[in-house]
Amino acid sequence: MPKAPVPIFIIVMAFILALDFGGTKLAAATVNVGSREWLRYESRLSPANADVLSDLDIMRSLIDSLLKGSKPDAIGVSFGGPVDAATGLVRLSHHVPGWENIPLKDLLEEEYRVPVTVDNDANVAALGEHRFGAGQGYESLFYITISTGVGGGWILNGKPWRGASGMAGEIGHMVVDPHGPVCLCGKRGCVERLASGPYMAQNAREILAAESLSRKGIVRGEILRNLVGDNLSLLTGQLVSQAAAEGDNLAQEVLQKAAWALGVGIGNVANLMNPQRFVLGGGVTKAGEAFWQVVRRVARETALPEVNFEIVRAVLGDDAPLWGAVALGLEVLH
Amino acid sequence: MPKAPVPIFIIVMAFILALDFGGTKLAAATVNVGSREWLRYESRLSPANADVLSDLDIMRSLIDSLLKGSKPDAIGVSFGGPVDAATGLVRLSHHVPGWENIPLKDLLEEEYRVPVTVDNDANVAALGEHRFGAGQGYESLFYITISTGVGGGWILNGKPWRGASGMAGEIGHMVVDPHGPVCLCGKRGCVERLASGPYMAQNAREILAAESLSRKGIVRGEILRNLVGDNLSLLTGQLVSQAAAEGDNLAQEVLQKAAWALGVGIGNVANLMNPQRFVLGGGVTKAGEAFWQVVRRVARETALPEVNFEIVRAVLGDDAPLWGAVALGLEVLH
Repeated sequence: MPKAPVPIFIIVMAFILALDFGGTKLAAATVNVGSREWLRYESRLSPANADVLSDLDIMRSLIDSLLKGSKPDAIGVSFGGPVDAATGLVRLSHHVPGWENIPLKDLLEEEYRVPVTVDNDANVAALGEHRFGAGQGYESLFYITISTGVGGGWILNGKPWRGASGMAGEIGHMVVDPHGPVCLCGKRGCVERLASGPYMAQNAREILAAESLSRKGIVRGEILRNLVGDNLSLLTGQLVSQAAAEGDNLAQEVLQKAAWALGVGIGNVANLMNPQRFVLGGGVTKAGEAFWQVVRRVARETALPEVNFEIVRAVLGDDAPLWGAVALGLEVLH
Repeated sequence: MPKAPVPIFIIVMAFILALDFGGTKLAAATVNVGSREWLRYESRLSPANADVLSDLDIMRSLIDSLLKGSKPDAIGVSFGGPVDAATGLVRLSHHVPGWENIPLKDLLEEEYRVPVTVDNDANVAALGEHRFGAGQGYESLFYITISTGVGGGWILNGKPWRGASGMAGEIGHMVVDPHGPVCLCGKRGCVERLASGPYMAQNAREILAAESLSRKGIVRGEILRNLVGDNLSLLTGQLVSQAAAEGDNLAQEVLQKAAWALGVGIGNVANLMNPQRFVLGGGVTKAGEAFWQVVRRVARETALPEVNFEIVRAVLGDDAPLWGAVALGLEVLH
């Protein structure tokens, strides 16, 4: 018998273009469907005087450099600000002017002639951790980023929950201490007001300034002062964490208050939504084991005994929004 | 031409049996599928020394009296305590002893040979308001009952969200004032600690007792005292509401604090989940327009400006769990 001819499969590899409009950083990457490594990756810092046009120009040049004339099968976009994910309309950027009501999805679809999905960075990072990171296999999770701000994104029943008008996830503006300091949003004692990096720095600064004025003769925060050569305007959340790790008790007080606020917020969310996991990312979560212990203890104390959950570290780091953008692109394909 | 024979349809009307194990009241009702009126309805108060066996006996006699030998197509059950809805296992009752780990769904299915669905009363009432009440046509809502306790139930994407282990909705134990009074759960300043009926009564009692001991000569709460003939142990949340409506400023203070706590809770939930509607039921919500105004104002102030929502009254009243149980039964049929 003659042999059957060997069939020839032509495998057409679909690939996704992932974009991250990060406020201070613009990044783009391509990935083959099914792969967990970037085909290509490029990023650029936003210039100091960035506006919507310069952001779009920079992103176009990143895309051109990545694609070199090839065409992706879908584009997923993470945007650092409120977005109407249903229409892909950017509402505004808190960092870059001119982004008010920009139809980013439509712009990109017209220019690149492929399906585009846009969502805000917290939702996208949540999706990234769910599909490729610390949330794999979990049907329900809340991702929280604690960085220059505090934001969150939901996965429920294995899918993003964005809220009726795309505003869900704002744990940063949950009030945990109505007698606390005033937040930019006008309320007192929001999670973000106590736990974000810049506000931790401000809290340390204010305590240092107040204590240097008092005549008690007690001097605290020596390590912290030394880190900035007594120039308190140079204080950052990261330096507060560093000083706390080196034993500075004033810095420890500020950091513990941040961890307390986050713990109360997480416990409240656990009571309200009962997700399986909390996944925490962002610069402030690098503050060390003492920070994590307080977060976990306070969250456990705040939640009812019957409400179980885990609090774990995000694993995708700064790439979480890009990987989430990949997941957005995959949703269009399937 | 001969006339075609008139077709004869035999309409078999499916009907649902709805049960409400309410802690202090047991109720059962039957309804035809598609109807909005009870076929039959009966209820009985739980005796003072009730236990799981007496509760089940009373419910059986209610069911026998309603069914008279006919067989429902499905049974939906609202239970006043934590339930694992997936298995229909009652975890416990906070009111009636002996309910620990009772497989209520299995018991009823064996006895009546029809599909049974069991869930806790807040989830079931949320479903009732969604299908038949103030939540009709809304894809996302949070139902809150403010009564002897404060509980809640979610509808997201048009379906109940029960949480990873059926514990979602516990807004009653969201901390809104970490410096507030100690709650039964051990934490300070939970929504329930400030806004439930019995705790409102306790708060009023404590202020009255404290102020009668002080020697300032300021006497407040005269209307409230008169309502109970100076016997403070007779105070209830309802009397606090009544005295507030009649102009008692101490009662007004207590009621406003309750409304404030609820408003902060709702605003926090709005920021976190961005549902379309909040539906509020339970005795405390009958406290009058001043109460509602504070709830709405504080919720609006607590939520971010971009987060929109409505706060409306539940419309099914005490029947919300029974109508929700009907909806549970319908889910089995479809």
